Amino acid sequence: MKARVHVSLKSGVLDPQGEAIRHALGTLGFEGVEGVRQGKLIELELAQTDPAAAEAEVKKMCEALLANPVIESYKIEIA
Amino acid sequence: MKARVHVSLKSGVLDPQGEAIRHALGTLGFEGVEGVRQGKLIELELAQTDPAAAEAEVKKMCEALLANPVIESYKIEIA
Repeated sequence: MKARVHVSLKSGVLDPQGEAIRHALGTLGFEGVEGVRQGKLIELELAQTDPAAAEAEVKKMCEALLANPVIESYKIEIA
Repeated sequence: MKARVHVSLKSGVLDPQGEAIRHALGTLGFEGVEGVRQGKLIELELAQTDPAAAEAEVKKMCEALLANPVIESYKIEIA
Protein backbone atom coordinates (compact mmCIF):
# COMPACT_ATOMS: atom_id res chain seq x y z
CA MET A 1 0.00 0.00 0.00
CA LYS A 2 1.23 3.48 -0.88
CA ALA A 3 0.88 6.52 1.40
CA ARG A 4 1.73 10.12 0.55
CA VAL A 5 2.42 12.71 3.24
CA HIS A 6 2.37 16.42 2.38
CA VAL A 7 4.31 18.31 5.05
CA SER A 8 4.14 22.10 4.89
CA LEU A 9 5.03 24.97 7.13
CA LYS A 10 2.13 26.36 9.15
CA SER A 11 0.90 29.73 7.89
CA GLY A 12 2.63 32.58 9.68
CA VAL A 13 5.89 30.65 9.91
CA LEU A 14 8.64 32.36 7.90
CA ASP A 15 9.77 30.28 4.91
CA PRO A 16 13.34 31.29 3.97
CA GLN A 17 13.53 28.60 1.28
CA GLY A 18 10.34 29.87 -0.29
CA GLU A 19 11.67 33.43 -0.17
CA ALA A 20 14.93 32.35 -1.80
CA ILE A 21 12.99 30.66 -4.61
CA ARG A 22 10.78 33.72 -5.09
CA HIS A 23 13.86 35.96 -5.28
CA ALA A 24 15.59 33.62 -7.74
CA LEU A 25 12.51 33.46 -9.98
CA GLY A 26 12.45 37.26 -10.04
CA THR A 27 16.11 37.36 -10.99
CA LEU A 28 15.38 34.91 -13.83
CA GLY A 29 12.76 37.33 -15.14
CA PHE A 30 9.58 35.63 -13.94
CA GLU A 31 7.17 38.37 -12.93
CA GLY A 32 3.96 38.15 -10.92
CA VAL A 33 5.21 35.59 -8.38
CA GLU A 34 3.60 36.95 -5.23
CA GLY A 35 4.52 34.15 -2.82
CA VAL A 36 6.33 30.82 -2.67
CA ARG A 37 6.09 28.17 0.07
CA GLN A 38 8.16 24.98 -0.04
CA GLY A 39 7.18 21.78 1.76
CA LYS A 40 7.99 18.07 1.67
CA LEU A 41 6.25 15.28 -0.18
CA ILE A 42 7.06 11.90 1.37
CA GLU A 43 5.93 8.73 -0.40
CA LEU A 44 5.86 5.57 1.72
CA GLU A 45 5.57 1.99 0.48
CA LEU A 46 3.91 0.04 3.31
CA ALA A 47 3.42 -3.71 3.86
CA GLN A 48 0.13 -2.88 5.60
CA THR A 49 -2.90 -3.65 3.40
CA ASP A 50 -5.72 -2.15 5.48
CA PRO A 51 -6.19 1.56 4.62
CA ALA A 52 -7.44 2.60 8.06
CA ALA A 53 -4.59 0.86 9.85
CA ALA A 54 -2.11 2.30 7.36
CA GLU A 55 -3.42 5.83 7.96
CA ALA A 56 -3.18 5.41 11.74
CA GLU A 57 0.37 4.11 11.42
CA VAL A 58 1.44 6.94 9.10
CA LYS A 59 -0.09 9.47 11.51
CA LYS A 60 2.16 8.08 14.27
CA MET A 61 5.14 8.29 11.91
CA CYS A 62 4.31 11.96 11.24
CA GLU A 63 4.07 12.74 14.94
CA ALA A 64 7.29 10.84 15.71
CA LEU A 65 9.52 11.84 12.81
CA LEU A 66 8.15 13.09 9.50
CA ALA A 67 6.74 16.45 10.63
CA ASN A 68 7.73 18.95 13.28
CA PRO A 69 4.40 19.61 15.03
CA VAL A 70 5.58 23.01 16.31
CA ILE A 71 6.01 24.61 12.87
CA GLU A 72 4.65 22.11 10.36
CA SER A 73 1.27 20.65 9.46
CA TYR A 74 0.78 17.46 7.45
CA LYS A 75 -1.82 15.81 5.22
CA ILE A 76 -1.95 12.05 4.67
CA GLU A 77 -3.20 10.41 1.45
CA ILE A 78 -3.57 6.63 1.33
CA ALA A 79 -3.56 5.24 -2.21
CA MET B 1 -4.04 32.14 -8.67
CA LYS B 2 -2.40 29.28 -6.76
CA ALA B 3 -0.14 26.66 -8.38
CA ARG B 4 1.31 23.57 -6.72
CA VAL B 5 4.37 21.80 -8.09
CA HIS B 6 5.21 18.25 -6.95
CA VAL B 7 8.89 17.60 -7.66
CA SER B 8 10.11 14.04 -7.13
CA LEU B 9 13.15 12.02 -8.01
CA LYS B 10 12.83 9.92 -11.15
CA SER B 11 12.46 6.20 -10.44
CA GLY B 12 15.82 4.49 -10.47
CA VAL B 13 17.55 7.51 -8.94
CA LEU B 14 18.95 6.70 -5.48
CA ASP B 15 17.18 8.64 -2.72
CA PRO B 16 19.54 8.95 0.28
CA GLN B 17 17.05 11.12 2.16
CA GLY B 18 14.33 8.55 1.68
CA GLU B 19 16.69 5.81 2.84
CA ALA B 20 17.61 7.81 5.93
CA ILE B 21 13.92 8.27 6.78
CA ARG B 22 13.23 4.57 6.25
CA HIS B 23 16.14 3.64 8.52
CA ALA B 24 15.03 6.11 11.20
CA LEU B 25 11.45 4.82 11.11
CA GLY B 26 12.79 1.29 11.62
CA THR B 27 14.86 2.45 14.56
CA LEU B 28 11.74 4.05 16.05
CA GLY B 29 10.01 0.68 15.85
CA PHE B 30 7.83 1.21 12.77
CA GLU B 31 7.74 -2.09 10.90
CA GLY B 32 6.59 -2.82 7.37
CA VAL B 33 8.03 0.31 5.77
CA GLU B 34 9.28 -1.11 2.48
CA GLY B 35 10.30 2.11 0.78
CA VAL B 36 10.44 5.88 1.29
CA ARG B 37 10.89 8.57 -1.37
CA GLN B 38 11.09 12.25 -0.44
CA GLY B 39 10.27 15.04 -2.87
CA LYS B 40 9.42 18.75 -2.82
CA LEU B 41 6.04 20.42 -2.75
CA ILE B 42 6.25 24.04 -3.95
CA GLU B 43 3.21 26.28 -3.64
CA LEU B 44 3.23 29.44 -5.78
CA GLU B 45 0.93 32.46 -5.44
CA LEU B 46 0.70 33.99 -8.95
CA ALA B 47 -0.72 37.31 -10.16
CA GLN B 48 -1.70 35.53 -13.40
CA THR B 49 -5.45 34.82 -13.55
CA ASP B 50 -5.64 32.67 -16.69
CA PRO B 51 -5.10 28.96 -15.80
CA ALA B 52 -3.53 27.99 -19.12
CA ALA B 53 -1.10 30.91 -19.08
CA ALA B 54 -0.29 30.18 -15.44
CA GLU B 55 0.47 26.53 -16.23
CA ALA B 56 2.74 27.50 -19.13
CA GLU B 57 4.57 29.98 -16.93
CA VAL B 58 5.02 27.49 -14.08
CA LYS B 59 6.30 24.90 -16.56
CA LYS B 60 9.01 27.38 -17.59
CA MET B 61 9.81 28.00 -13.91
CA CYS B 62 10.21 24.25 -13.40
CA GLU B 63 12.53 23.91 -16.37
CA ALA B 64 14.57 26.96 -15.30
CA LEU B 65 14.79 26.50 -11.54
CA LEU B 66 12.31 24.42 -9.58
CA ALA B 67 13.25 20.95 -10.88
CA ASN B 68 16.48 19.36 -12.05
CA PRO B 69 15.41 17.73 -15.33
CA VAL B 70 18.28 15.22 -15.18
CA ILE B 71 17.13 13.46 -12.01
CA GLU B 72 13.73 14.94 -11.16
CA SER B 73 10.25 14.88 -12.66
CA TYR B 74 7.50 17.37 -11.78
CA LYS B 75 3.73 17.62 -11.79
CA ILE B 76 1.88 20.95 -11.91
CA GLU B 77 -1.53 21.56 -10.34
CA ILE B 78 -3.30 24.86 -10.96
CA ALA B 79 -5.92 25.69 -8.33
